[in-house]
Parts: sequence; C-alpha cells; structure tokens
Amino acid sequence: MQCISLLTDFGLQDNFVGVMKAVILKINPRVEIVDLCHQVKPQDIFEAAFLLKGSFRYFPKGTVHLVVVDPGVGSKRKKIVVKTRDYYFVAPDNGVLCPALADEQIQKIIEITNEKYFLKPLSHTFHGRDIFAPVASHLSLGKRIEVFGKRLNSIRQLDLPTARRMKDKLTGEVIYIDRFGNLITNINEDEFRDFVANSNFKIYIAGKELNKISRSYQEAEKNRPLAIFGSFGNLEISVREANARQFLSADKGTPIQIVKK
Amino acid sequence: MQCISLLTDFGLQDNFVGVMKAVILKINPRVEIVDLCHQVKPQDIFEAAFLLKGSFRYFPKGTVHLVVVDPGVGSKRKKIVVKTRDYYFVAPDNGVLCPALADEQIQKIIEITNEKYFLKPLSHTFHGRDIFAPVASHLSLGKRIEVFGKRLNSIRQLDLPTARRMKDKLTGEVIYIDRFGNLITNINEDEFRDFVANSNFKIYIAGKELNKISRSYQEAEKNRPLAIFGSFGNLEISVREANARQFLSADKGTPIQIVKK
Amino acid sequence: MQCISLLTDFGLQDNFVGVMKAVILKINPRVEIVDLCHQVKPQDIFEAAFLLKGSFRYFPKGTVHLVVVDPGVGSKRKKIVVKTRDYYFVAPDNGVLCPALADEQIQKIIEITNEKYFLKPLSHTFHGRDIFAPVASHLSLGKRIEVFGKRLNSIRQLDLPTARRMKDKLTGEVIYIDRFGNLITNINEDEFRDFVANSNFKIYIAGKELNKISRSYQEAEKNRPLAIFGSFGNLEISVREANARQFLSADKGTPIQIVKK
Repeated sequence: MQCISLLTDFGLQDNFVGVMKAVILKINPRVEIVDLCHQVKPQDIFEAAFLLKGSFRYFPKGTVHLVVVDPGVGSKRKKIVVKTRDYYFVAPDNGVLCPALADEQIQKIIEITNEKYFLKPLSHTFHGRDIFAPVASHLSLGKRIEVFGKRLNSIRQLDLPTARRMKDKLTGEVIYIDRFGNLITNINEDEFRDFVANSNFKIYIAGKELNKISRSYQEAEKNRPLAIFGSFGNLEISVREANARQFLSADKGTPIQIVKK
Repeated sequence: MQCISLLTDFGLQDNFVGVMKAVILKINPRVEIVDLCHQVKPQDIFEAAFLLKGSFRYFPKGTVHLVVVDPGVGSKRKKIVVKTRDYYFVAPDNGVLCPALADEQIQKIIEITNEKYFLKPLSHTFHGRDIFAPVASHLSLGKRIEVFGKRLNSIRQLDLPTARRMKDKLTGEVIYIDRFGNLITNINEDEFRDFVANSNFKIYIAGKELNKISRSYQEAEKNRPLAIFGSFGNLEISVREANARQFLSADKGTPIQIVKK
Repeated sequence: MQCISLLTDFGLQDNFVGVMKAVILKINPRVEIVDLCHQVKPQDIFEAAFLLKGSFRYFPKGTVHLVVVDPGVGSKRKKIVVKTRDYYFVAPDNGVLCPALADEQIQKIIEITNEKYFLKPLSHTFHGRDIFAPVASHLSLGKRIEVFGKRLNSIRQLDLPTARRMKDKLTGEVIYIDRFGNLITNINEDEFRDFVANSNFKIYIAGKELNKISRSYQEAEKNRPLAIFGSFGNLEISVREANARQFLSADKGTPIQIVKK
C-alpha cells in the first residue's frame, strides 16, 4: 500500500488537514495517509525542515512526503516535486526540503505547473488543498513525476544553524524543544565524539555546568539537568521527570558550549 | 474503499475519538476514517455547521459524514441519517447539518430509532460512541438507510448569520477565525462582486480601512491588514505573516462593512 | 484487517507519533493504526492506565494495544507483551497495563528482549520508535508472541485509587477530567447502586450538595451541577452546557462523598 506523509503548520483546530485528506482520498482511495506533524509553528520553515530531516527515513520506501509550510502561498514562489531513490517530496520551493535532501541523491526535480492536476477553482490561500494534495495523491497512484511540470536543476537552499568547532571549544544552540521540554541542540553525536575524543569535558548551558553524558534519564537525580544523545541523534539537555525548558529558562537559540579540559 | 468523516467537539485530549474509531472498525474493519476536525468549540453547533458546509464536498462520493456536536445528548432531541445524491450524514437533529444541506438535494431523512444498531449498555452521555458511530459504520457497509428507523419529512433548521445588502452598503461579520488568526467573514465572493460591480469601494473592519482585494498575502506589506478571498470562498481579513485576530483585536462577531464610493 | 491502537503521552506537537506510525507501516503496510489518545499528561502512568482500561474493549478482537507512557525509558525497567483471549498489549512494565488486565484472563506474558526486532541504532530515549512500534507491528503480522523474548510470570502492579465504603458513607475522588470539564470519579455505577439501594442519598462534592442522579445533562438547569453515570460507567459531576471543573474549582483528587439519609 502506498503512503503519503503530511507535515504542515495547519494545526488541528480547523478543517484544513481533514480537507487535504479528503482531496487525497477522492483521487486515491487506497492510499495510507500518515500525519507526521501539523503543529509546526505557523510559517516556521526551519522547524518544518528540522522535523522532516529527522523523520522521513523511517517511512516505507515509495512514501510521498507532502510538506505544506508555505508563507509564500499565492505568490510567485515555485511548487516542486523531488524524486530521490526511495521517496517523493512535494512542497513549496522555499527551502523546507533542503536539509532533508542534503544527504540524499536527488534523481529529479519538477516544478509543478500542469494545471490539469489542480483543483478548480484554485484558491489563492490554500494550495495545500488545491495543488499539493492532488499532486501527492496522483504520485501515490504511480503517475510519473514528469507529468506535473517542467524540470528544474536545483531547489532553494536553507541552512539550519550548525555547530561551530574551534580549537578547544564546540559551540551550538538549542534548535528544537519537544513536548516534554527537552532541549534539542544542533550538536550531533558524531561531532561531539570527534571533538571530545578521550578528553574530559564540560558542557555549559543556561548558567549550568555538566560534565558527563547520561545513557538514560534515570541515571540523573530528579531536578538535575542531564545531557543525553536523543532520538534525533543530537545532544539534548533534559531534566529527569521535569521540563528542561522551564527548569533552565531556556528557549530556541539558547547557546551551548562544550569545552575540553 | 468506503470513507467516514468525523466532525466533533471532543478534542483530542481524551479517549473519545479513539473509542468512536474503535467502534467503527469493529463493525467495518475496512472503512477509511478521516478526522475532519475535533476542535470545534464545545457545543458550538454554529461552528460545526460552518466547517461541515465548507468541507463535505471535498470527500469521495459515498462518504458518511458523522457529526457529533451534541449538547442535547441523552435528551429527546432526535438522531438522524440524511441521504443526498452523493453523501450520507449522521448527526443529532440540532440544526448542525442544515447549512451544508441547504444547496443539496435531500433524498431521504431517517430518524434513528432502531436499537438493534446501538451499543449496549447505552450511555446517557456518549451517543457518539453508542449510537452514531455504529450507525455510520453500518451505513459504510452498505446497509440501507431505512433499517435505522422511521422516515422524517424535515430536519431542524439553523441559520448561520448572513451578510445584509443595502443600497450602498454590504454588511457582515466575522464568523470564523482560523489557527493563523485569519478573520473569515460571512460575505462570499459572489455577493461581494455582485454588490461592488465596477465601483470603487472601501472595506471597514475594526477601525481599519481597506480599498482593494489582494490576490495573495505577499501582495501586502508586512504588518498591514489585507482583504482576500480565502479557501472557504469568503472574504477574509489577514495580516501578512502575522495574526489578524490579535493585530486588529477582532473576534467572532466583529462587524465588517463594504461601502461603494 | 489488523488493528494497532496507540496510547502515549507524546502529544501531537512533535514528530514522535508520526514516526512511530512510519516504523509500524514500514513493517506492516496493511495494518490499521488508531490513535486512542496521545495527550496523556507527560509521564502520568495512572492517567494512561485509566484511559486504557476504559477503552480497550471497544476495539476489534486481535487489536494490538501499544502503550508508551514510559518515564523509565532507557533504564532497566522491563518491556513486555501480554496476550489475553482477545487482545495483545505492548508496553513498558511500569504498571500501566495492570488496571486494564485486572478482569482479563492473561494467557501469556513475554519480556521483550530479542534485539532482532529492535531498530538500530537503538536510542536511549525513544523506545516507542525503536522497540515498541516494531514489536507491535510484527505482532500485527501474526508473529508468535514467544519470538520476542522470555516468558514472565507476572506484570508490575498499579492500583488506581478506589472508592471506600463505610457503613453509611461511600467516599471516592475525582480521577479524571475530560475536555468538557466533566469530573469523572472513581465510584462506579454498581458500587453506587449497591450502596444506596432504595435509600435517599446526598452527594457532597466541592461544597455542593446533590440529591439525585440525572439521566441526561438536559434534566438539570443551566449553571447547576448534576450527577450522572457517564461513558466510563462511573459517577460524574457535570454542569449543563458549562465546565464543572471551573464551576466547582475542582481538580483531580477532589473528594466526593455519598451519604445515605
């Protein structure tokens, strides 16, 4: 069975997601639709890009990843389909696909221009419903990517903030905070281990100092911050059975430093 | 594959929606269930009616639209199934279906009375689980509508507030506000164009004055309100990359006036 | 079609639930996944246990109930699969299954130890994705429960607070509050009727006094609290078309007393 994943900033309080699914099922009644996430902060392309990058590979091969975080809806921003070896991606060309595709081999990029696949009348404010959903659904039916428009050579770039390595310091920042208040930084496990090697180290964040990596939340005392490699593969700061965001008064952008001793 | 859409005010914080789906799948394991929306304001029949009206036609033909916004649960309010050419509707008879059905040809209305299709024991507080879900699921299996009860001639009426047209003025109000803070009014595009024709016009809302219709959010400057025909087909007031509700301190019921110049 | 229910404290703001579904569908593309609830209060095993107990029997026979409320993730807490006559349960062994299984005949308990079924690399913080989801999905494919590990004789116990009956008094407490603000107590209908028999009674909660059980919300006047047997089969305190939690300033743990007259 074919699968379409949905990643949007539509939230669930309105009918937007439900209507997109209706449009998809009207075209392909047998497709499996999976909500990846709809609570992306309104128009936050970076957050959507981060979530997509950390999620898309868990889906079955052949999944169509449909991303609608689209502050430029109705303007001249392009709409694209990208084919990699294992997946399709359908999205506005605003950079949201860029981090996910950084390590993928792109096989083809198509600008969506063929109005035959659009809903009519076409709204100016909801291309998720009128363009992206029908294109994704037709893709899931096995339609060839070329039918949707003309070939492009590149997609718009977007760089998530990366960690910076100096001689004796590795610096990064909090780039995502989850429901539990865990602070996900942009320092990934490989970078960290490569930098630290066999040295002792200290981690500085929000006025606190940590000197080890925990292997589970339970290793720490209650109400004490801990550092752990989390499910995104990045260094996270957590507080056992509590909310690190609140505990440390941290937020997206809060800096973190690793220093060798 | 048969489809059931769900529109409720149950929210997602409890197990109510999950249990309704369980009941549906126990009867018809192959049906496709689509969440249209569950965040209707508790017991707000008007909001549910507005969302249903703006959504139901996007679903595949044959879809069973199941609506449970039911302040009268357990009382003598009727429970009904309505058949139109393309869809079935299952809901309490409290007017919630009325706006959606206004332009549809109703083929049959049945009052749900046949307890054979109810879950036992029947609760007094959750007919969504015990009556509406099983009826919708049996419908999705192809059961004839007549088996659920006796024929009715009419459903309860409910009028969404409509725009009023005077000689040189068209007045309406905000009837829905979406996640992004866009103010959806009850003035639809046809009414607006018919009234304005080729004249110049001014739009007054919340102390602001607008004199054109934008074709995309991007046409406006940041932090300036704009008027646009939105995805419901109605006139909406938005602020580019911001929240118009907050920006204009507007709410449901806020009046809007169109004046010809 | 096989069904997997999901009950977690992951919320919907992140990609956690979406990624678990991806993992499940990659293994069994034909399984039907139902969200039972994801808004369990973070790490609140009692709340999850209460919701599971009140929901699992509505699902089709053969459903795999996957519960991930797991404050001990990454520690030495066990991970288990339980088989009853009609269902499978997959969860951390922290007591969350205990109330649901109290009246069920357990056929087999297996500790999940077979790493063959784990995702690699195995994270320390997201066993929902890396262990529980793949195990549930393999179960839904018909894999025998024994393949996942070694047999256990018992699961960890957890007792939800129960009502206490004295000579002329039945006392309980609010154990759950739903979206509408209804106060669900731990006094079930049988206990109540058995205690009250044919006597008159008074119900005391939050400084209010009630002397009857309503059969519907509509029986009460607006803005007056009422007592009703709700959809969990327990005594609930509600306010017609209003929020009893706010109206009575009640919360989880608020005591309730039934006194015979």
